[in-house]
This record gives sequence, structure tokens and C-alpha cells, in this order.
Amino acid sequence: QWMMLDWKPKRPDMLVDPFGLGKIVEDGFIFRQNFSIRSYEIGADRTASIETMMNHLQETALNHVKSAGLMHGGFGSTPEMSKRNLIWVVTKMQVVVDRYPTWGDVVQVDTWVAASGKNGMRRDWLIRDSTTGDVLMRASSQWVMMNKETRRLSKIPDEARAEIEGYFVDSPPVIDDDSRKLPKLDETTADYTRTGLTPRWSDLDVNQHVNNVKYIGWILESAPMQILEGCELAAMTLEYRRECRRDSVLQSLTSVLDKEVGGDLTNFGNVECQHVLRLENGGEVVKGRTEWRPKLINGIGSLGGFPA
Amino acid sequence: QWMMLDWKPKRPDMLVDPFGLGKIVEDGFIFRQNFSIRSYEIGADRTASIETMMNHLQETALNHVKSAGLMHGGFGSTPEMSKRNLIWVVTKMQVVVDRYPTWGDVVQVDTWVAASGKNGMRRDWLIRDSTTGDVLMRASSQWVMMNKETRRLSKIPDEARAEIEGYFVDSPPVIDDDSRKLPKLDETTADYTRTGLTPRWSDLDVNQHVNNVKYIGWILESAPMQILEGCELAAMTLEYRRECRRDSVLQSLTSVLDKEVGGDLTNFGNVECQHVLRLENGGEVVKGRTEWRPKLINGIGSLGGFPA
Repeated sequence: QWMMLDWKPKRPDMLVDPFGLGKIVEDGFIFRQNFSIRSYEIGADRTASIETMMNHLQETALNHVKSAGLMHGGFGSTPEMSKRNLIWVVTKMQVVVDRYPTWGDVVQVDTWVAASGKNGMRRDWLIRDSTTGDVLMRASSQWVMMNKETRRLSKIPDEARAEIEGYFVDSPPVIDDDSRKLPKLDETTADYTRTGLTPRWSDLDVNQHVNNVKYIGWILESAPMQILEGCELAAMTLEYRRECRRDSVLQSLTSVLDKEVGGDLTNFGNVECQHVLRLENGGEVVKGRTEWRPKLINGIGSLGGFPA
Repeated sequence: QWMMLDWKPKRPDMLVDPFGLGKIVEDGFIFRQNFSIRSYEIGADRTASIETMMNHLQETALNHVKSAGLMHGGFGSTPEMSKRNLIWVVTKMQVVVDRYPTWGDVVQVDTWVAASGKNGMRRDWLIRDSTTGDVLMRASSQWVMMNKETRRLSKIPDEARAEIEGYFVDSPPVIDDDSRKLPKLDETTADYTRTGLTPRWSDLDVNQHVNNVKYIGWILESAPMQILEGCELAAMTLEYRRECRRDSVLQSLTSVLDKEVGGDLTNFGNVECQHVLRLENGGEVVKGRTEWRPKLINGIGSLGGFPA
């Protein structure tokens, strides 16, 4: 379905983008940018961290809006949005990772937008190995508009819709919508809890809010070390519920499903976790589901039956 | 002195590095790499964070070693070092920042190495605005070898010296050595203390240790918000004393000197701080000094008498 985008290796026009700032391709509907994976973007297992990959998604989304000449005054706001104090906020993010790149690899990120219901926008991404064209990762996200002053959600004003709808692609999402309800998780039902998480000064973005990519690190703070070390994140669904500000104190809760070998995590296959990141007063900031597969050791290992 | 490196804007040979992986220039002594500043590398004031700049230093240092064909088995270890289980560890880092780049700016990082005493190596960096050639930042660092197993410092074996000394540049450091002693700082003498800092899983590098760039964020955790918000970091000297592992719990202590207007930080000029990052048992991990200048608001402001 999403293979409508024909991948052409080593196109000569890559040379017109020597600084890797990206450009619009495919008749103006798709924004494409290459990233070389840097040493500080990889983790203890030498592959790019999920945060790195999510950062590349953010960067291409913003550069897409900028390249289209629609960036005005803020992070991703169009001129008509800025007039009305409107900003985009993400409500849902789904990610499937087939393979993580390593230091020095160059990945090619394609992104485009589509309509989503009456008052939303969908943004999809495809990340490929720029040498082989193999798809490494797919991501699909839902966005709505919020008033920056009142922090209330807003309908899309007709004038803002007129600015953006010409860019909408008519294609199904790169990942089918995971509409399974995330169960309520609290200190009595969670397997693992980490409390007292606070934003660092360097976690704040230009709006003095915590960037949504940072939440992922906090969610994983309560995942057990056996999973973090023995597995790699294969898929993730995050639902963003509430903002986190710089004086927020957060709790990260994780529940592990599909525990094999009688709850012993040392010899497991695929694992599913459920997560919630919440304020100390109980307000939910992010709910999520993650799926993990055993890490390949020295390139040899079982890829198992992970449902991609 | 360090202007021996002639800067040539927009050299046509930049086109042979379309993915920004960098290359060796100037007869093989200098490694040069361009970076475009990404949206997730900037902070609340829209300029690149100091961590971002330090990450670029790390990346160019590693790519320098790699380009020279000396990378073997680890992060920056040469073949003769790997044979002996030796790794490089940084003992001192000095940084002077004249101006921070913003999102979309392209910076050009030059780096080279020099001898330092009998058993050390110095590595210097110059970061320029790639469009104007203006110097944005200078950095100079001291390195020694450590045995990865015993964690003890080592002399440079003759075989390893033979591998690297051909790359040594005979030039003075880009920053004069700041040999002022850093005073002892503890809970009774520090103005600000932040306790209970722990590494996140994503803070660990391929050696499962906390990367030295991460320490900067922790050091700044105890700096008062008025300085973080009202000033920008103009210079920094860090002395690395001890490793931090993933189960370490750290305390960050800051003392503010040159407080003007009777201790009121809301209307200050340049500020100097002293810092220590230590383990809960008192062992010092990093000692440091930072110098701050008032942030330019809308491009207008006093640059004051900061001694660059």
C-alpha cells in the first residue's frame, strides 16, 4: 500500500543538498531529508536510539512546513495559525521499527501529510537505509490544533485549512490504526514504577514545554532492565493526553504482558508492555504500548513471530 | 595564533561530501565536518545548546580517528590501543563560545591533535559559521589513556605513540590553559545543590558509561534559573576526575561568584560560577568553572566586558 513511493537509490539530485537540509520531492507532496547517524545518537548497543529516530521525524516535519513556505513565527505554525495563536499538538504516534541504523549509516526520511477526520491532520513517515532502500521504520501520527494562550483544542479554521489542504496526500496510513484501548494503569496494577521524574533545563523546547520526544525516555525509565538490555523496541503506540511543564513531577508506570517462562524475563521471546506517564496528582500525560523482540547478538538471532 | 588555518568559504570540494560525513583537509592534519543545526538540538532560547556543540566536538573527534584509518574495535581506540585494552579518557575540557548558532545554521568544525606532556594528547576544535567564516566557538581538551579492564591510567605505549604522533600538529592551544585551581565545594560552601541525579538508560554510551557530554546537563541542573534563563554560557572549564556508572547517584553543587546588585541575580552583568558533580559518598566526578554573559534580547544588549 505505502509502496506508492518509488525509491530511487543515489539520485544525482542529492548533490544539490550538500548540507542535508532536505527538500520537497514527488510533485511537492513529499519532503525528503537524509541524516547520517552520529556517534552521540547511538546507545549502549551501538544502534540509534528510538529518541534519535523520533528526533529525525520531528526535524523532517518542521523542515517540510518550512520548505513549503508555511512556517510562521513558531514551530510548525502557518501564518493563519499564528494570527489565531494556534499551534499543532500531537495526540497519537504509532511507530514500527524493522531495523535500527548504526553510527555512520545514512537514512532517508520521507514525510507527508493527509486529512484526518474533520479537525485533524495525519503525518506519516518512511525511513529507509539510503544505500539499500530497505525500509527501517514507519511512523504515523495524529495532530490537532491548540490555542497557545488558553491551551484548549481548536477546530481547524477555514483559512488555515486552505493553507494546508493542498499538501494533503490521499493515501492510507503507513501503519494501520491501533485502536485497542489502553487499560488504566496505576500503582496497584503496574509491575514497575519510577517516581520523581523531573524535566531537566535542557529538556525544554522553544515553547518552554517538554518536547514530546522526551516523554519516551521517561516511559522507558520504568521498563525493566532485562527488557531494555535484552530486547529492542519493535513497535510503539503513544497517546498524548496532557502537557508537561517544566515544574511537573512525573511518575512512570510499566506493566509487562506476555511474560514467558513463568514471569522470568531472562529467557523471553517477544514481550508487550503497557505504560503510563502521569503527574503526581494522577493526571495522565502519556499512555502507551510497546512491543519488544529479542536483540540480535552478533547478527545471529531469532526474529521470531513479531507481527509488523 | 590559531588563525594559521586559512578559512575558505564555500569551497567547491564541499560537494564531494554530500552526506556531511566530514573529511581530512590541510595536508592531512585537520579533520573538517559540517553540521546543520537541527530543531531538536536547540533549547528554549532557540539557539543550539552547549550539549549540542559538545556533541559535535565528540563526533568530529571520532570521525577524525576513523578517517585516519586508526579506529579499531571501539570509540576512538587505535589498533595498538585495542590490543592492550586501552581507551582514551578526557581529563580536561576548556570551551569559549562567542556566539551560538540557531536552527538551520550550518557550522564547520575543524579539529586536530597535538602532543601534551609525556603521556597526554591535546585535541583542539574551531567551530565557524560556514557562511561567514566567523569563529563561533573554540575548544581545547586533554586526553590520557586508560586500561578498560583495570580502569587505571596508562602511559602511552611506544607502539600506540607511533600510530598517532604523525598526526600531531605543532601549534599552541586555541585557548590558553586555565590553570586556576578550582576550590573545594561542598554542601556547606555551595549556594545551590541538586541531589538524587541518576543516569537515564539513554544516557549510556557504547561502553555502558555515562558520556562526558551528559555531565554538563547535570552540572547546569544546580545553576539558578535566573542564570540559565537570563544569561548564556560564554566559557567553561571542566576537569574530569572519576567515572560515573549507570547505578551512580549524583549531587550537583554550584557556587555563584561576582554576584552583582547585592546578591540579586535579576539585573546582573557577567557571572562566574564554580561547580562540582559528585557521588553521594563525596567522590568528585567533575569540577568546573563557568562564565556567563547577559543574553541578547532581540539582538540588542550589552556584550559587556567578557574576556574571550
